[in-house]
Amino acid sequence: MSLLVVGSMAFDSIRSPFGEVEQIVGGSATYFSIAASCFTPVRLVSVVGRDFPKDVMEKLSARGIDTRGLAVADGETFRWKGYYENDLNVAHTVRTNLNVFEGFDPVLPPEWKDTPYVFLGNINPRLQMNVMDQISKPRIVALDTMNFYIENSLESLREAISKIDVLIINEAEVRQITGELNLVRAARMLMDTGPRRVVIKRGEYGVLNISGGDIFAVPAYPLDKVFDPTGAGDSFAGGFMGYLASLDRKEISNKDYRMATVYGSAVASFTVEAFGTQRLESLSREDIAERVSMIRALIEIP
Amino acid sequence: MSLLVVGSMAFDSIRSPFGEVEQIVGGSATYFSIAASCFTPVRLVSVVGRDFPKDVMEKLSARGIDTRGLAVADGETFRWKGYYENDLNVAHTVRTNLNVFEGFDPVLPPEWKDTPYVFLGNINPRLQMNVMDQISKPRIVALDTMNFYIENSLESLREAISKIDVLIINEAEVRQITGELNLVRAARMLMDTGPRRVVIKRGEYGVLNISGGDIFAVPAYPLDKVFDPTGAGDSFAGGFMGYLASLDRKEISNKDYRMATVYGSAVASFTVEAFGTQRLESLSREDIAERVSMIRALIEIP
Repeated sequence: MSLLVVGSMAFDSIRSPFGEVEQIVGGSATYFSIAASCFTPVRLVSVVGRDFPKDVMEKLSARGIDTRGLAVADGETFRWKGYYENDLNVAHTVRTNLNVFEGFDPVLPPEWKDTPYVFLGNINPRLQMNVMDQISKPRIVALDTMNFYIENSLESLREAISKIDVLIINEAEVRQITGELNLVRAARMLMDTGPRRVVIKRGEYGVLNISGGDIFAVPAYPLDKVFDPTGAGDSFAGGFMGYLASLDRKEISNKDYRMATVYGSAVASFTVEAFGTQRLESLSREDIAERVSMIRALIEIP
Repeated sequence: MSLLVVGSMAFDSIRSPFGEVEQIVGGSATYFSIAASCFTPVRLVSVVGRDFPKDVMEKLSARGIDTRGLAVADGETFRWKGYYENDLNVAHTVRTNLNVFEGFDPVLPPEWKDTPYVFLGNINPRLQMNVMDQISKPRIVALDTMNFYIENSLESLREAISKIDVLIINEAEVRQITGELNLVRAARMLMDTGPRRVVIKRGEYGVLNISGGDIFAVPAYPLDKVFDPTGAGDSFAGGFMGYLASLDRKEISNKDYRMATVYGSAVASFTVEAFGTQRLESLSREDIAERVSMIRALIEIP
């Protein structure tokens, strides 16, 4: 089943203790859609500038990512420059140039109105709500956000969250939105406002998945090589939503959500093994299945 | 089978965002031995001052903790005063008064020479080696340490580590000793120097257990009430070693180590539910078994 993603596409310049790259293709919608396309057809809604390489768009299309919703605007593509120090869990921003992303106004092709699975990447919550208004009767709408919108648009963010099914955010953001340090209590507070599930990303520590009666934790696979954590969270979300969309079920069970969390974790664990989307692009279904088996072995209690 | 612990006993004054207590009984050997005594008889080697309450010693004895190795010295018991802010993973020390602990010279009763399971709590590595010299042919010796000894006694700490079987330390300490940020690689570096297993404590994120070919991760149980993280690491180690000692096996398998890690995590998850050793003291085998089942359900992949 089709999965729609709305979010940013960007050129990233990244330095980590393990190397440095200049102006590689990144952005939340890019990582998300490449990860999700391992599982299901993807509909991409974003904006790039005239400088965005045609061959990247062709590579996305070749993966089953439909780019009819990708606007090409006059001006330059969004640029982000940042670095990681020894603590790979913390990204430091050097510069953000929104460029064409500043005027982003997501408009869906009319034939995408009935998309059943929707992921709202971290953009202005008003735009996230605009996208929801353009979709009729989706099965699952998931939403991500970031500290910027928690600090500057909390009211509209709360409104957007009240309309969704699954909230997929970082540990620190859960605490920041709710003002509650205990994650279990914070997740319950968020669920009281609308979503029936909160998926908490904890970087190298893994993911905590909380719904009414079900708590599921999966540790991140401990890799002996981590080069660049950029995009790990977005590819987690892509694997998670891509897996759910591929199931094509009317009712999604806790078991399905648990498996989606494991698949998301498996995909994210590849992302960090190389800079940018490099490793992610070369992923086979067999690679993913093998990593899922490794996660099973990692946590197996005799 | 008997399990020997050497470490500190103290009066702790603790403030957390959830309350404050003055001069309650604490110390690494205290938490460890109460936790371990849920599984096996414990031999306690420590020192307290004349001010240490007799009824606490009697309570320990009643739990099967043999206090013949507990010296009572002229002077006051070790005192620690500290607090936690919102991040419960970080303890801030206000004051440390070593008192009688400054002259601690662990001497084992001669009849304890053949103790098969030994835990060397975080004391000066020279003393840890003294204890090893007093034991003949132990099955497993495990060791904990802290930043103070990494910074001030690294050479003797390395020597002590070269003589043990299992290293049980915090994530930050693993990185500090090795200078390697990647935990898998850091654990391998440590194993190259002697220990055949490194058990990495990650606070609210759980435990990573690494040996030659086996990596095991168990997330901490996400509690909706955490009052005081003091002693969580020591009670983890107590549950871990107590479980292993209770098995009484000549050869301990990876499976046994995995179960020990789960039992340690279960016990530690109770410790943080109350200030001091309060919750730990009232633990039944049924409570522990139930928490182990909850951990199984938490991580179960369909």
